[in-house]
Amino acid sequence: MFAPTYLDWNATTPLDPAVREAMLPWLDARYGNASSRHEYGRQARAAIDEARARVAAALGAHATEVVFTSGGSEANNLFVKGAAALKKPALIAVSAIEHPCVREPARQLARQGWTLREIAVDAQGRIDAEDWRAVLAGRPALVSVMLANNETGVLQDVAALAAEARAAGALFHTDAVQALGKMAVDFRTLGVHGLTVSAHKIGGPLGAGALVLDKRVELAPLIAGGGQERGLRSGTENVAAIVGFGVACERALARGAAEAERLAALRDELERGLAAHGAKLFSAGAPRLPNTSFFAVEGIDGETLVGRLDRAGFACASGSACSSADPRPSGVLLAMGVEPVLARGAVRVSLGRDSTAEDVRGFLGALGRLVDELKNLTAMAV
Amino acid sequence: MFAPTYLDWNATTPLDPAVREAMLPWLDARYGNASSRHEYGRQARAAIDEARARVAAALGAHATEVVFTSGGSEANNLFVKGAAALKKPALIAVSAIEHPCVREPARQLARQGWTLREIAVDAQGRIDAEDWRAVLAGRPALVSVMLANNETGVLQDVAALAAEARAAGALFHTDAVQALGKMAVDFRTLGVHGLTVSAHKIGGPLGAGALVLDKRVELAPLIAGGGQERGLRSGTENVAAIVGFGVACERALARGAAEAERLAALRDELERGLAAHGAKLFSAGAPRLPNTSFFAVEGIDGETLVGRLDRAGFACASGSACSSADPRPSGVLLAMGVEPVLARGAVRVSLGRDSTAEDVRGFLGALGRLVDELKNLTAMAV
Repeated sequence: MFAPTYLDWNATTPLDPAVREAMLPWLDARYGNASSRHEYGRQARAAIDEARARVAAALGAHATEVVFTSGGSEANNLFVKGAAALKKPALIAVSAIEHPCVREPARQLARQGWTLREIAVDAQGRIDAEDWRAVLAGRPALVSVMLANNETGVLQDVAALAAEARAAGALFHTDAVQALGKMAVDFRTLGVHGLTVSAHKIGGPLGAGALVLDKRVELAPLIAGGGQERGLRSGTENVAAIVGFGVACERALARGAAEAERLAALRDELERGLAAHGAKLFSAGAPRLPNTSFFAVEGIDGETLVGRLDRAGFACASGSACSSADPRPSGVLLAMGVEPVLARGAVRVSLGRDSTAEDVRGFLGALGRLVDELKNLTAMAV
Repeated sequence: MFAPTYLDWNATTPLDPAVREAMLPWLDARYGNASSRHEYGRQARAAIDEARARVAAALGAHATEVVFTSGGSEANNLFVKGAAALKKPALIAVSAIEHPCVREPARQLARQGWTLREIAVDAQGRIDAEDWRAVLAGRPALVSVMLANNETGVLQDVAALAAEARAAGALFHTDAVQALGKMAVDFRTLGVHGLTVSAHKIGGPLGAGALVLDKRVELAPLIAGGGQERGLRSGTENVAAIVGFGVACERALARGAAEAERLAALRDELERGLAAHGAKLFSAGAPRLPNTSFFAVEGIDGETLVGRLDRAGFACASGSACSSADPRPSGVLLAMGVEPVLARGAVRVSLGRDSTAEDVRGFLGALGRLVDELKNLTAMAV
């Protein structure tokens, strides 16, 4: 297999070898249904309990607050739609830069009598303070603001927002899928009612995520049935994936701040190179994740550049991976007031566990050559 | 690890070695997000396309009719709640012996203005013809009747029921989770609007299932977001699990009728032995899956017997695995009019790919000893 340098860690991550090792027995002789009352079932149940404790520990939560789901999209839908289902239609406010798996369930609610209000962001992609005050004045029942944006990496001050939203009587949810593993994420410190995480963004497998949920919050399940996960998420538990998620959380916790510093240093080197190539960096003035750079080179289409980079051996993204099939420019950038013509140039590089200085230098070299080529082509076309 | 003889194949199944082999590369170097537009993403997308074709082929469906989900419970919820969300509240009819992941979403609808009608079954667990006519006369908008029951193994004449329901203007769904891999399941022949299958019941992994859906049926997604699976199921696809599901379907198709005959012969031997031990077999007079025996020995508690069998090295179930944490007697048996005292004695043995005549003889030997012991204990207690 042709193996390009992987610079798309916000889209998904390779399995941490320790995670893979921990999962394999559950794809082999340990195959029980965790609801079964025999040896195979008990082993599966014990493994899930252990994983739940690990996920909780990584998030400063209690194990009983962790609701396992099939992934981040399901966990976001579970909070938004599950909380709304037990309330009368009211106001729901979500930031203008949420992932589609928060925006779309909110839009579904808007078709069911809810009022949907998007919370504006400023030119750096941070929640606009004035608009936030206006939103709270409208007394929303539900608010969802992500901890770190998947495209720009911009962080929001979720602890402060959650405290204000609580004071205004709202339930507050945060999508922490991109934050986990790249910064400290503490359920208590954030003071949110619900928090979403996903295994495959942190070296864990696809197929496992969690909603960490304040037990005073009642939700209607999206998937009703056998009553697994305290009745909040029915379906036979994906034991191998949950075990892998637990180990991935433990590993992320162990890497901690040192890994964030290492990534930030690589990222800084990358961004110095990007500036030298004339790239415009989005959200440069905001607090950001240590691993994410979102940029555009004026006059060069992002899709085209990402395609050329791929053929040159560097895998990165032109937008959020989930909407890469969608040709519209990034909604995140448009919400920040970026001109569509520049937004169409957006390229995301996201670093991770295996990223090295050689990767960054190789990428910058390839980018420089491709930018020169594409600029010449554009010049000829004009 | 202590490895009891596994006789609980309706709860879950060990991975088919060929499935495991096919999955492993996707837990290793092939880790892309299928939405990513680079080499890793394209490989993942191609693998999902191939798996979709395999699942479709095993079910006599077109690949575009296969909607991948995280499992059977999600697929059942997706049809029931997804179809209802786009209709005005009306009548929904589900059989009295459906799995909780059909019954519970139907009950959620009943709390949202829908009228829920359970379709009665006769003493053998088959849909009661008279009640079925009464249900149709009520003009239901949605009907769900399972193809094969998880506890008794009883089959319903879904093709006939679906044709009648269609003629009466209903959308008809069938849960084929227990049928797949044990009998021919053909989407066109059944003539249903939606059909649910699950990978882990057929030698595939936990974490993958599918709703096969008539494309003329519109559903609201349970999990909205990035727009994967034609917008019907958002969330980064679990590539390894989907690949495994595809191979498991191919293998099930290849084993075909010969394996069903082998299982039926083993099952018949088992049931001759059960009769000799004085066990009462449920649904003995109905068409059933070739691998499932559901029985009780009068005066002996099912939970107790299953616990003793487990310690003696035989893993089987006292009810459906999903409700094994629930101490109430089987709702399926109660719906069939079985006395609660006998229903509490219910034990399910379900055979599979690796089951042998030695397994059956060993089990019967252990059962005989345990029944004698437990009867003596009961006699002494009296």
